Amino acid sequence: MPATAHTPASPPASHPVSVLGLGMMGTALAAALLKAGHPTTVWNRSAAKTGPLAAQGATPADTAGDAVTASPLVIACLTTNDNVRELFAPLTAELRGRTLVNLTNGTPSQARELAAWAREHGISYVDGGIMAVPQMIAGPQAYILYSGDEDAYTAHRDTLAALADTKWVGTDAGLAALWDLALLTGMYGMDLGVSQAYALIGSAGVPAKEFAPLLLEWVVAMTHGMVPGTAEALDSGQHLTDVSSLAVNQAAVPNAAAAFAEQGVQDLLFASLRPLLDRAVAEGHGADGLSRLSELLRTP
Amino acid sequence: MPATAHTPASPPASHPVSVLGLGMMGTALAAALLKAGHPTTVWNRSAAKTGPLAAQGATPADTAGDAVTASPLVIACLTTNDNVRELFAPLTAELRGRTLVNLTNGTPSQARELAAWAREHGISYVDGGIMAVPQMIAGPQAYILYSGDEDAYTAHRDTLAALADTKWVGTDAGLAALWDLALLTGMYGMDLGVSQAYALIGSAGVPAKEFAPLLLEWVVAMTHGMVPGTAEALDSGQHLTDVSSLAVNQAAVPNAAAAFAEQGVQDLLFASLRPLLDRAVAEGHGADGLSRLSELLRTP
Repeated sequence: MPATAHTPASPPASHPVSVLGLGMMGTALAAALLKAGHPTTVWNRSAAKTGPLAAQGATPADTAGDAVTASPLVIACLTTNDNVRELFAPLTAELRGRTLVNLTNGTPSQARELAAWAREHGISYVDGGIMAVPQMIAGPQAYILYSGDEDAYTAHRDTLAALADTKWVGTDAGLAALWDLALLTGMYGMDLGVSQAYALIGSAGVPAKEFAPLLLEWVVAMTHGMVPGTAEALDSGQHLTDVSSLAVNQAAVPNAAAAFAEQGVQDLLFASLRPLLDRAVAEGHGADGLSRLSELLRTP
Repeated sequence: MPATAHTPASPPASHPVSVLGLGMMGTALAAALLKAGHPTTVWNRSAAKTGPLAAQGATPADTAGDAVTASPLVIACLTTNDNVRELFAPLTAELRGRTLVNLTNGTPSQARELAAWAREHGISYVDGGIMAVPQMIAGPQAYILYSGDEDAYTAHRDTLAALADTKWVGTDAGLAALWDLALLTGMYGMDLGVSQAYALIGSAGVPAKEFAPLLLEWVVAMTHGMVPGTAEALDSGQHLTDVSSLAVNQAAVPNAAAAFAEQGVQDLLFASLRPLLDRAVAEGHGADGLSRLSELLRTP
């Protein structure tokens, strides 16, 4: 479990921060910094976006270079990491000696490339993955995963805590994006399952709200068993089970697939799982539990 | 939410029951009935399986016909519904006037066909879906979904409660199998997501147990939001969102897919979701939330 720093109960000292990129998320980040009392400089490619933040006390910068030089801590929240590279490539002199916290969505390798570029130019680089939608920023359930330059992170952690809880995941700059994507992956899987489940139930004319309480209870209970259980199996390499073997699961899948076909519902889930379960059993893992599947995905 | 009957606090009156099919599940069911004090007749194609139950007080029957005529309530738990049809087709005279509770895994249409066959022969047919592994039978978290002949179900509900909590889902005999499969679908989706997430994290050398607490917290929190929220959207037909639109999700998927490729992990999940998200946006649903996907799965 990574270290978590909650927003301190007493207000932190005020530190100048610059925020570049004022989409929905960047705007929410800048507003949270202003609310926490940090002098906040803002910049956006289309300047109109700075208006509402200026009304809240932000200082709009005329150029990205002005924004960078206004603060020791520079937060970027752009659409893609290509945008980050294009924006900051001409600004290495301005960035030197400062900390760039990049909260733009991207892949681990993009973060690692940016970290290498920053190192080359004397810029302290921290990558971040925001586990929240803009509406949740500065709220109780949001957190941001950070990785990269640990000294720079530690120096600015209290300021960053104004945005959301902070979770440090390691000095490999790619880790924040990796953890972020892995968490999203867990969510999208659950959502695919829930979407398929509601489609199946709906095809028989059952109102979703009649089915929802059992579905919620069931998926939550299974998650509570599956997530820690799979971790233990993966870390120990012990996948044998006396509860629900891959062979039993493989045997159950054709009924599920048949039910989707009978009800005229598209089946993305079992169509994906079936070849993986077949492979697991064919490779001699029939007595193992579902935790084995994660291993198989790593050796395609 | 279907009606739930908890095992009554005072022991129910004892009622003769026959259990046909003594795999792991059938054996657990018969043991639970014996423990609750019901005179239990057992039969299995290979007779050796009756031994341990006989030691617990069960009466082994020499033939399936003898097992059927021993009790007004006949529970079948075979490997497939083909086995159920083959076993009972020659026993319609013996079954007439009795209740057949079929707890064999199957599809909704198989259950409906068996219900039609039973009706034709004066047999009361109840289909069931067991939401438990054998180890959970008669335990606090297990339940069984029932559908079909409601009078027969009501007459035997207290006896059936010895197996697990009972949940009635409707007079269409196919509904228990449908609800069962829909719940399993939710679980398999979650499990695919969790398996992919651990594979991604593991590919960077992060121990699963370091990631597990955040994954558990995240998936459970998302499930608590997604399951009721999607039900409300589906029942009302209102899928518009101001939080996480399909267009935003569509834009995020390429990063996720790229991360799997970079890390050398097989990507079943986003490979499935991507065409569905593309279709959603192409069909003009880009401003809708993920709840829309369930609708799209019903109109392939």
